[in-house]
Amino acid sequence: MTMYDVILKKREGAALSKDEIEYFVNGYTEDAIPDYQASALLMAIFFRGLSRDETFMLTEAMMRSGDVADLSSAPGVKVDKHSTGGVGDKTTLIVAPLAAACGVTVAKMSGRGLGFTGGTVDKMEAIPGMRTSLEKDEFTALVNRAKISVIGQTGHIAPADKKLYALRDVTATVDNLSLIASSVMSKKLASGSDAFVLDVKCGDGAFMRTVREAEELGRLLVDIGAANGKKTIALVTNMNQPLGKSVGNALEIAEVIETLKCEGPEDITKLSLTLAGYMILAGGAAESWDEGYEKASRALRSGAGLDKLRELIKGQGGDPAVTDDSTLLPSAAFSVAVRADADGYTDRIAARDIGLASQRAGAGRETKNDVIDLSAGVVLRKKVGDAVKAGETLAVVYGNDKSKLDEAAEITKAAFFTESAPREQEPLIHAVIMG
Amino acid sequence: MTMYDVILKKREGAALSKDEIEYFVNGYTEDAIPDYQASALLMAIFFRGLSRDETFMLTEAMMRSGDVADLSSAPGVKVDKHSTGGVGDKTTLIVAPLAAACGVTVAKMSGRGLGFTGGTVDKMEAIPGMRTSLEKDEFTALVNRAKISVIGQTGHIAPADKKLYALRDVTATVDNLSLIASSVMSKKLASGSDAFVLDVKCGDGAFMRTVREAEELGRLLVDIGAANGKKTIALVTNMNQPLGKSVGNALEIAEVIETLKCEGPEDITKLSLTLAGYMILAGGAAESWDEGYEKASRALRSGAGLDKLRELIKGQGGDPAVTDDSTLLPSAAFSVAVRADADGYTDRIAARDIGLASQRAGAGRETKNDVIDLSAGVVLRKKVGDAVKAGETLAVVYGNDKSKLDEAAEITKAAFFTESAPREQEPLIHAVIMG
Repeated sequence: MTMYDVILKKREGAALSKDEIEYFVNGYTEDAIPDYQASALLMAIFFRGLSRDETFMLTEAMMRSGDVADLSSAPGVKVDKHSTGGVGDKTTLIVAPLAAACGVTVAKMSGRGLGFTGGTVDKMEAIPGMRTSLEKDEFTALVNRAKISVIGQTGHIAPADKKLYALRDVTATVDNLSLIASSVMSKKLASGSDAFVLDVKCGDGAFMRTVREAEELGRLLVDIGAANGKKTIALVTNMNQPLGKSVGNALEIAEVIETLKCEGPEDITKLSLTLAGYMILAGGAAESWDEGYEKASRALRSGAGLDKLRELIKGQGGDPAVTDDSTLLPSAAFSVAVRADADGYTDRIAARDIGLASQRAGAGRETKNDVIDLSAGVVLRKKVGDAVKAGETLAVVYGNDKSKLDEAAEITKAAFFTESAPREQEPLIHAVIMG
Repeated sequence: MTMYDVILKKREGAALSKDEIEYFVNGYTEDAIPDYQASALLMAIFFRGLSRDETFMLTEAMMRSGDVADLSSAPGVKVDKHSTGGVGDKTTLIVAPLAAACGVTVAKMSGRGLGFTGGTVDKMEAIPGMRTSLEKDEFTALVNRAKISVIGQTGHIAPADKKLYALRDVTATVDNLSLIASSVMSKKLASGSDAFVLDVKCGDGAFMRTVREAEELGRLLVDIGAANGKKTIALVTNMNQPLGKSVGNALEIAEVIETLKCEGPEDITKLSLTLAGYMILAGGAAESWDEGYEKASRALRSGAGLDKLRELIKGQGGDPAVTDDSTLLPSAAFSVAVRADADGYTDRIAARDIGLASQRAGAGRETKNDVIDLSAGVVLRKKVGDAVKAGETLAVVYGNDKSKLDEAAEITKAAFFTESAPREQEPLIHAVIMG
């Protein structure tokens, strides 16, 4: 078998065999297959697609390209939650404590921010002292003790995906459902949990732009999970405006804490309870989603969720006092308010542009090695549907590098669209896909 | 502009601008654009195609990536002839002397063999002493004196094509008409002639398998030539069996000499006169193709063509005595005869397999750095349509490495198909496409 033959076969539209897929994945991981052949195959896959079986085989080959975590020493059903990435999406740090407070074990590996979307690991690092890299024993001990730990993905988890993702990112071969699904699920399966709740973001501020496409991805993710014997539930949720009001690392941590104090924005609260309900269901701590949702709501109201967040922070070396005093979080030296030009109703807030504005203010990386300004970001004062008066503040842009804030404010301002009448609210949850 | 944007644009099916094409070609030639982005773009081009305008622009950018030869010091209209590559195709060394003998100037750069097809430069090196690499002054002087010189392509001619071809070869992106046409014409245009006669091979022993596809390529080649102000004529010719009877370097030189002595196989004689006729027309030494063909026929019968070949050989340091004594050419130590199993008529001779058999016997390279056995190859004793008796010799395989000959003979035998009745002869010339 040669890589040339594999490329040609896919280019001609034929299905690749298990051997061919493993040959490619293993050869590429071991540097035996050069980048230029891998990228040619990826582009051929973009045009020809992969069948369900090919996607399953690719996922498995990538999963097996590195370590597969063994969480069997932790008690109960381990449930992981994953988001395909959005703007202002801080749900992991709300949902994981709520689910853990309801008896579900959450042993989670999270990612860093990419492009206009944020990442949970970056957000956690806004908490003073918080470590996102734990030794295996420490991770397992914390999971056993607190039922919760959230750490960064290690280099030994699905190295094939890491290498392929970096290549796809520079060769315009990211947006193919099979490649996206196998990338997500290879990491999830290798991280060792028993069940998965996946939040497929859909809309302007997500990689999936249409509900139909997001549903297709959700179905594929669920099927891959099922093919590997893992209970998997995918939700397709709205990302046509930022989730909650805060975008940026420390700003989002503050909103996480507010939300766990029942003082958070309505959309993030509702989505978090919904996701937590499915995690509790998937973890066997409820018979139905309704029951899971009810348990999560009680954990929110009782403060059990917030307690669990404190336990998580403390367990990973962070200062739990941030949950009572948000001034302990990094704060920006400068801010610029973005004001409305005219009266009306906020009709649309381009989520992607708010993500870019936050990135520009310093909250995100433009290249892999950029250092993040943890205090930087955007706080929305108005959400879609809100009445606005001329001169009122629409949003505030924060950061420590004053020279970047004007541009970030301009991008933010251009992301707001006002109309004379309020628009009907879009649904927050488009679909729930169960295995 | 980034290469990512260029890949994405083509992937989405849009036409690339002149700036984008030049950015890609120049960046890739200068190693500023990595192989993996180039191969992703090539695969996107394979699926989306290039428009005529994009193909013209790509050709021009590749032509300008290196030196553009200036042949203006040589007198008259310089006419080049090019074949897309076939099996047993030794026409250049017959046609160029015939055209030069009729007053056309031929200042030609030729290639080496690739895969199952041979190359003129390799064939010339079978002539003792013959040099295929001349200094510019020497080349120009010979063209001025003899009206003919045939040398290898220099590294400064279309380096972008050289680099891209090597990449296409390992990423399954060779067989796209626009990429093939721009590759051929960038080199031709950079080599400085005023007019081109292109022989597009079609059939089992060529890269183009169908007449329709070959005609499309011919039309594109002619249009690129016209867009650059060069008179260009493309012929689509049959390559469903090897051309002539000899395949392999020294064996083909012997057939070139026979043909110029009016003792060559019918097909190679007819095709050579046809091509020479078009070269004489394109070079302005005839008013019509009929007149050009007539002039070429006279040059053949009078021996003027053979005299011109002697002049070419002598001018490039070779021993012209080979034209009178073919035992001066390299000869093989071993030969194996391939015999017929049954009576009948030769119905088909798989040209590609004969090319592969010759390569296996030692006449071709399997990798770029292989050394060729100049004496090796295959001589057909039967052509399509010939009557065959059981036990009669169909072909003889030659070479100096005895261990390879049995396999080469097996491949040769399997390439012969016999039927009980003779099949109708296929046309030798399928189409002539003029600018």
